[in-house]
Amino acid sequence: MADPIKVLVQQLAKLPGIGEKTATRLAFHIIRSPEEYAVALADAIRGVRREVRLCSVCCSLTTDDPCAFCADARRDRETVCVVAHPPELIAIERTGAYRGRYHVLHGVLAPLEGLGPEDLRITELLRRLAGGEIREIILALSSTVEGEATALYLTKVLRPLGVRVTRIASGVPIGGELEYTDPATISRALEGRREA
Amino acid sequence: MADPIKVLVQQLAKLPGIGEKTATRLAFHIIRSPEEYAVALADAIRGVRREVRLCSVCCSLTTDDPCAFCADARRDRETVCVVAHPPELIAIERTGAYRGRYHVLHGVLAPLEGLGPEDLRITELLRRLAGGEIREIILALSSTVEGEATALYLTKVLRPLGVRVTRIASGVPIGGELEYTDPATISRALEGRREA
Repeated sequence: MADPIKVLVQQLAKLPGIGEKTATRLAFHIIRSPEEYAVALADAIRGVRREVRLCSVCCSLTTDDPCAFCADARRDRETVCVVAHPPELIAIERTGAYRGRYHVLHGVLAPLEGLGPEDLRITELLRRLAGGEIREIILALSSTVEGEATALYLTKVLRPLGVRVTRIASGVPIGGELEYTDPATISRALEGRREA
Repeated sequence: MADPIKVLVQQLAKLPGIGEKTATRLAFHIIRSPEEYAVALADAIRGVRREVRLCSVCCSLTTDDPCAFCADARRDRETVCVVAHPPELIAIERTGAYRGRYHVLHGVLAPLEGLGPEDLRITELLRRLAGGEIREIILALSSTVEGEATALYLTKVLRPLGVRVTRIASGVPIGGELEYTDPATISRALEGRREA
């Protein structure tokens, strides 16, 4: 293989979920595609690293500081939805069901991987609470062991500060068949039952 | 989503086999990765389009013209292995079982997609044959409808020129269980049987 192709395959294979075979296929696609595409892709990669930063308020990814969510006066200032990673913020925003602010932790507690509270953007969240405006913190964390541990930790830290701390509901997903739902999810759905 | 992220997701989603979800995951990975990686990846993409060209002899992808295969005096000049695409050349080369030259068609006949003989690098192959040095052309094309059609077409064009035209064998893959091999492959394997 020509050296520039080898180099590109190596770099592409560093991306998550991309093995050497896929990287090779992508590299040959890039070679065959119009030069404008290769230039646009390369510029987009450089651009994202150069222009995207963390919002100094909510730590979401943004080109402007504060970000569009924090700067939008129509969004409820009293409610903050805490997510672990930026894509989760986008997933929530896509529903159109939430009109409060956000806070991105950039991780979850994972002691086995050496990730403690000091590695998450918790200090920034506490600083926001000191402003006194926030009434409710919604923890929108994944239902994984690490997500649960992070939610428990945050609840312990936040509740004494006089703020309401809630968690998004766990249960049977919409369209999910009860028969094929795992026992842990069913237990959680029973526990979280509400008046019909 | 911040605009530079959207732009990157759009560009990544143009790659084959990469949908919007995967593109989003890759984009966030690039944002989180060290800046050196983003720069190296962007440079590799630009580099491959700038430095890689077609060998003027065999049409393989190369940075030097003629390519390393055509320039290697130790390789058999009398045998040319014809492949449809560059990755197939690499697959053959990886076996270490072939020491002749190559010719890359950059496609197969696909009339339904409007790909005729004039879209393949056949003129370049005929020009090489005019040199008089080539004695055997091995057609190493996939066992697909298009691959078969291309092989038949090339056989018809090349045989009258007094060159030996062969095809790589079709049959049961090594490690393949006869019980689970499709009927067409078994028929082909029977047809191609040899003295034990």
